[in-house]
Order: sequence, then C-alpha cells, then structure tokens
Amino acid sequence: MSEIAPAENELRPEEPEDDAQFADDRTLSTEFVRSVVDALDAEDAETFKGLTEELHAADFADLMGLLRDDERESLIRLMGGAIPSDVLAELDGDLLEEVIDAMEPSKVAEAVVELDTDDATFLLEDLDEEKQAEILALAPIEDRLALRAALDFEEESAGRLMQREFFASPAFWTVGQIIDRMRSAEELPDRFYEVFVVDPAFKPVGSVPLSTLLKASRETVIEDLMNSRDMRLVPVTMDQEEVAYLFEQYNLISTPVVDDADRLIGMITVDDVVEMVREETHEDMLALGGVEADTGLSDTVIETVRSRFSWLAINLGTAIMASLVIALFDAAIGQIVALAVLMPIVASMGGNAGTQTLTVVVRSLATKDLTATNAARVVFREATVGFLNGVIFAVIMGMLAGVWYFASGWGTENEAIRLGIVVGVAMIINLLAAGLAGILVPIGLQRAGADPAVASAVFVTTITDIVGFFVFLGLAAAVLLPAAS
Amino acid sequence: MSEIAPAENELRPEEPEDDAQFADDRTLSTEFVRSVVDALDAEDAETFKGLTEELHAADFADLMGLLRDDERESLIRLMGGAIPSDVLAELDGDLLEEVIDAMEPSKVAEAVVELDTDDATFLLEDLDEEKQAEILALAPIEDRLALRAALDFEEESAGRLMQREFFASPAFWTVGQIIDRMRSAEELPDRFYEVFVVDPAFKPVGSVPLSTLLKASRETVIEDLMNSRDMRLVPVTMDQEEVAYLFEQYNLISTPVVDDADRLIGMITVDDVVEMVREETHEDMLALGGVEADTGLSDTVIETVRSRFSWLAINLGTAIMASLVIALFDAAIGQIVALAVLMPIVASMGGNAGTQTLTVVVRSLATKDLTATNAARVVFREATVGFLNGVIFAVIMGMLAGVWYFASGWGTENEAIRLGIVVGVAMIINLLAAGLAGILVPIGLQRAGADPAVASAVFVTTITDIVGFFVFLGLAAAVLLPAAS
Repeated sequence: MSEIAPAENELRPEEPEDDAQFADDRTLSTEFVRSVVDALDAEDAETFKGLTEELHAADFADLMGLLRDDERESLIRLMGGAIPSDVLAELDGDLLEEVIDAMEPSKVAEAVVELDTDDATFLLEDLDEEKQAEILALAPIEDRLALRAALDFEEESAGRLMQREFFASPAFWTVGQIIDRMRSAEELPDRFYEVFVVDPAFKPVGSVPLSTLLKASRETVIEDLMNSRDMRLVPVTMDQEEVAYLFEQYNLISTPVVDDADRLIGMITVDDVVEMVREETHEDMLALGGVEADTGLSDTVIETVRSRFSWLAINLGTAIMASLVIALFDAAIGQIVALAVLMPIVASMGGNAGTQTLTVVVRSLATKDLTATNAARVVFREATVGFLNGVIFAVIMGMLAGVWYFASGWGTENEAIRLGIVVGVAMIINLLAAGLAGILVPIGLQRAGADPAVASAVFVTTITDIVGFFVFLGLAAAVLLPAAS
Repeated sequence: MSEIAPAENELRPEEPEDDAQFADDRTLSTEFVRSVVDALDAEDAETFKGLTEELHAADFADLMGLLRDDERESLIRLMGGAIPSDVLAELDGDLLEEVIDAMEPSKVAEAVVELDTDDATFLLEDLDEEKQAEILALAPIEDRLALRAALDFEEESAGRLMQREFFASPAFWTVGQIIDRMRSAEELPDRFYEVFVVDPAFKPVGSVPLSTLLKASRETVIEDLMNSRDMRLVPVTMDQEEVAYLFEQYNLISTPVVDDADRLIGMITVDDVVEMVREETHEDMLALGGVEADTGLSDTVIETVRSRFSWLAINLGTAIMASLVIALFDAAIGQIVALAVLMPIVASMGGNAGTQTLTVVVRSLATKDLTATNAARVVFREATVGFLNGVIFAVIMGMLAGVWYFASGWGTENEAIRLGIVVGVAMIINLLAAGLAGILVPIGLQRAGADPAVASAVFVTTITDIVGFFVFLGLAAAVLLPAAS
C-alpha cells in the first residue's frame, strides 16, 4: 500500500512492473528465478531485496521451493535468518521443516505469535516435540496456551483447522451495536465473513453474512437477519474430510466450531478448506497411482526411490503370483506359443476395465455420491457394464485372434475358430470380474475402515491378471489340447 | 427462518429433528430415501412435503440423484412441475438437463430470473440452443440481455463463472458513505465479501474485505483501507483453470473481473471456485483412470458402456502392438517357456513405475509446481530414480528368476545365471524407460496443447510394455539361444 496517496486520476495498481517476474502461465519466470539465484550467489542483499520485496507471500514461498538446498540457505542468511510469517504459512511439508530448522527459535516464535491460531498450528504441528516446546517456551503465555490447546486436538480434526478468533453476538444486539463493537474490539480475526449469533449458553444458533449485516439498517436486531438453516455446527473433534464435505455440500464460507457442550470455541474459514480439499484429492490421486501421499518434487532422489519402492515391491509380489498362474500352464504354452502372445491382451483389457470402474468408484465414495442407499444398484450396474463391454470385445478380439492364428499358419481352420472362442469367453469373464472387483474392492476396503484409494488399484489389477491368465490358459488347455492328450 | 422469534433462552437451531434424515456419514439415510420413495409411489403430496421441506437445497438435489427415473418424474409432478431455483443450481450434468426438460419453460425462466447471473448461466449453458432461446424469451429483457452476454463468453472462461452483481466504490468515498449506499442499493449480490475500489475509468485499483470495512470508523476514506497488492484482476477471457490457480495461490475470496479495457464488469466468488477445483481434479483423476470426464453414477448402463468403450478400444490397440512384439520372438518362447512366465513381470514393473512417475508429474503440472524453470532438473531426477529402482529390482528379480529356473529343472546352472542377468538388465532398462516416459509424455502433451491427464497413461504403459517385452525377449534370444542356433 502506498503511503502517499497519488492524485485521484493517477491511481493505478502496481501490477505492470511485476509482470517480468511471471511467465505466461503465471508461475515465476525462469529469468526471474535466475536473477534471484545470481543475487544469492553474489550475496548481494540489495539486489535480492529489490527483486523480491514486491512478491506476494505465496510466490515467495514458490520461489523458495524452486531453489537448490544451498541457494535456500543463502537466501535465509541474506534475510537475516528470519522468513516472514506470511511466507512460512505458505510453505509446506519438508520444505517448511527445513526452513524452520534453519531459523532461530526466537524468530520462529515471533512469526507464530503474528499468525492466527490456525496458521500458527499449521507451522508447529509437523515439528518434533522438542522443537515445538522450545518455540512455544519463547511465546507469550496466552499464545502458548492457545497453541498448546490447538495441538492437543487430534491431527486432521476440526480443532487443528480452526482459529480461535471470531466474532459472536447475542441474538438481541442491533446491527448498529455490532458495528460499534467491531470498531472497538481488539482481538478480531484478520478476516472474517460472518457474525455468529449465540444463545446465553454461547451455543451458536444462527449466522449472518457481513454483506447481510451491511445491507441492514442500524436499528435491525441481529436475530431478524440470522439464518439458522444454512449454518452447520462443526464439533471440534470432526474429521477434516467431513468438514470439507460440509463446506462443499452447503457452499459455506465459514462455520462455527463447538466443544462437546455445543459452546462456540472457534471458526473455520473457506480458504483453509480450499487448501485441504486440494490436498485430500491430491493424496487420493497419488494413492491411485501407487505413490505415497506426502511425496513431491522437492524430495531428494533417495527419498523418492524409497517412497516408490514399497509399492513397486508389492507389485512385484502380485506380478509373481500372476506369473505362477502362467507357469501352471507351461505345457500348453510350449505346444501353442500363440497363447503367450495373446494372454497379455486378455489380462491388460481386464486391468484397464477394472481401473476404469475403480476410479469412478473411488471418486464417488470421496464425493459421497456412492452411499449405502445406492450401493447394490451400482454393483449391479458395473457388473452389467463389464459384461456388455466383455461381449463387445470378445467378438472383436475373438475374430482377430482366430484370423491371425489361421493366417500365420499355426493351426487349422477348426483350431483357429476354437482359439477365437477361447479368447472371447476369457475376455467376457475377465471384464465381468474387472467390473465386480473394481467396485467391490474399494467398497470393501472402505467398510473395513481403510482408505479405498490406497490399496485398491493393486488388488484390482492382481485379480484381473490372475483371472485373465487362469481363465484364458485354462480354457485353452481344456479346449485346444485334448487332441494332443 | 422462523417468523415469530422465540423467547431468548429458548433459542435452539432446528437441527435435532433433521437428524433422522442423515446417516452417520452425513449423507441421506437409506430409511429416509425409502420413506420419500414410498410417499412418491403413493402420490402422497402431504407426506412428501413434510419429509422434504426442511431439507437444504444441496441435500434435496442429492435426493433427486438417488431416485430412479420414474420416481424423479413423480417427484417433479408432485411439486407442481417446478423445482426451486436453489435446488436447480445444485444439480449437475445429465440430471440437470433431465429435470429442466421435465419442467415448463416458463417455470425454468422464473427460476433463472431468481438466481445470480453465474448460477443462471450454469443452468442454461448445457441446454441445446433452441431450449435456451425458448427459456430466455420468457425472461424479462434485462435478465435476457445479461444472460445472453454471459453465454456469449467462451465455455470454461471467467465470463461464465462471474456474476454481474458486485459492489464498487470510488477511492474517495468514506466508510460511512459506503455503508449508507449498501443499505439503499437495490441490485446487490446475494452475498459478497469485498468492496472493489475503482478509478474514474472504472478500473479496479484495490479491494477492501467487508471485515476491514466494518472495523474502520465511518470517517475513514476507503482508499486508506484498500489493498492493491493482494488483489488480482481477472480478464473476462481467462480460462477457469487459471482463475482457480489464482484463488488457490493467493487465498482469494473474490476477484474483480475486467473487460479488455480493464473496466470492472463482474465478480467471481470462492464458492464457485471450490466447486470448480473439485470438478477439475475430478476430471484429471478420471482421465488418468481412462474414464471420460463427464461420466458418473447417474448415467445409464448404455451410456456407461459407450463412455468406457473408447478407452478400452485404444487399450486393445496398444495391447495388440505389445503382443506383436511378443510374436516376433515366438521361436524363443517355444524353446524356453520360462520366458513367457517371466515377461509379464518385467512389463508390469515398468508399467507401475511409469504410472507412479506419471501421476506425480500430472499433479505437479496441475498445481504448477512443475514449470519450465525446474523441468530439466525433474527429468534428470526421475531418470535417476527409475535407474536406481531398476538396479534394486534387477538384483531381486534376477536372483529369484535364476534360482526358480534352476530349481524347476528347466536348465543348467550356467543357463540359470544367464537368465537371471537377462531379467535384471531388462528390468533396469524398462524402469529407466518408465521414469523417462512418465515425465516426458505428460510434459510433451502439455507443450503440444493437450491435457496431460487424458492420454498419458495409455502412452506410458504402451511404452513400458513394448520396451519391456522387446528388451527382455530380445536379450534372451541373443544370450540364451546362440547355443541352439
């Protein structure tokens, strides 16, 4: 914000000069990052400050993520060992820990005190207990108590997401009284969007958006403005995924958080939820791709190798199981090599169809579109879809396989027809199995209390590989070999 | 909202009695849905109304999604052919079209007029032109013009997301003046969170959150409160993904939308963005799983078969390509059947490693953590990770394969060692290929202007299948067969 107001018709946002910092896709431009790195290498504090002082905290955090470890260290040194609190609130995971480790505990404590409780909790929650205690010991007593209380709530609960700063009003206050209070109040949140109306026991009974408050006359009693139907009470122990669901389902901007006596003790705002929704879907997506949740581009090579290893090891195990099924039929393959050529097609189609169903089901579970009410219907539907696609691809692939087998001179017309039928039947059975596995596995995992996104993909493709190989090779051995036995 | 205010100490939200409608996971309970269906089957309008009148619009929309087609038709009939506008705004895709088709155009027009422009546009945008025109013709002239203008913007652009209702102030107004205007203004949005400060050319130069406005004294000039650094101007043509990025990156609650002369013409609010972020990630996730974007549980069996068919057909094509590679080496497989047993393991490990890298890369592109600035470094890193995991699994699998081959009496010790080495080398090469394909394919697709989530998975697994089969069987033929040739 400029200190001296320019003449009215000269008012312009300060954007144009910033543009050089950003590439077309609005991320920091390569040239900009390079000039920052040059300034860091030259330990040129002046140039560094000139380059970065107009940067938004979120972009500054991105910049830190793009630097190499040693560059990041010189950045922290150049900034006198203190990264501003708003930048810290934008860092995440390993990067945040690394930066906090590099800062003096007293500087971290100063940053923590400046932030609203939700952001301060976010900074502290991933540190080890000793470090937490060291930083908290340096904070004023009231902040220390509030933060200790926040950290006592379970991870991923509403208690961790909420801030203790909010604005509440009894039902009988007028709009004028409320505005006067806001002007004189000391401990208001940085930003808030609603007034929570509470009863004498401090239980929230309704909320009033600030825009509604502003549209009303000073004499209006808040109770006449309040809406109790669109408000949702969030118990402090509620899981953060449930909180996100409430925000999305009811288009909420903020919610009151209550303790077990239904007393108002905090507030959750939509910006924290946007962040969290992104993280949750992000984790689901990585899990479906067989990657551990808290991995990212800023991990080292060794961390990445380790985090990918476990899923690859599990996959090795399931691949070996599937190959043992193949080994059962080695005699058949020895006689008809075409089976080895065709078997991956049957397995691969099953794997793909299973993954399709699985993906839709995992998403539907996450968005709560798939519930106990419609589960049976959806299972039936997916089985039907699997069967129908099985029939379609059975016809296509059965014909292709028969023609190819006959044309390449491996067998007689009669054998070719039988091979085509075997491929077709195996395809139908495997796509049916894929449809059923794709829905039953994630539903089963969820009912068993596991995260359906995490292990489903491995289970489903194992099932389709094994069913695919077993049915195809088994049928082939039964139908094509009897002549030989 | 209750019309008659209860005595102060009796104030209670109306929640308790609603609870029977919901299951533990906060979705509509099976019992509740069943009693609604019973009321619909009995055409009992009274009971139906009693059951549903307390329902939030979002839950009512969910209820409609859980009904069978014929039940939904009787619901619409029972409601006199008109679904309330707030429920319509919560429906999506096929369901929305179906419901609008079942309503009288005049009733739809009434609903459209009640909504803010963004929600009204959402209702109309997926209808065919004829239907759109029919409904618009029934709306008052000013709504019709506003909606036509909104629909003229490109799909998925800021113009479609924005609402034309907002509150703007010149820089010299005082807080008192602004509050007075708000109290008397007629065309304010239902809800808004910020005042946009504009210069005489109506260009936004800063914004003031309502909470900041409320904390300030009546005499404060708005210019002294405004923040021009945290505000981001959104051009009306901006792609919605870019809009979402701005909201997430800068924790925005609302943004001013401007035309090409930078004049303020609308506002986008965070609730629309939450919805959209969810949809975009949802689509990415489905795309990675090989499912078309706008498919869901409410599609019919035939629609689902059709939507899954195209990806399965593409997969059939790539599976056939891979099997042609196997066919090249049919002589080798005929001599050493163990190759047929082992080859799916090499291919499957490659496919999984490729999918891991791919998933991380697609996510990093979506969150803009992967940019031109760090692309080269990330490519090198993924290749290294692939190589290292390749070495680890080469040792494990090479040893297993050798031991198994020898133990099952298929070959001599010397042949078993050579087979182990072939498996190991093929594993290293395929995991290296997987790492490279997993990053280069999505980056290449994005640079070519395609959506990296959509086609990447098929490309990557095709590459790892072909490389896996070719390298393993080719090496085996070269190393193990010379004795025979």
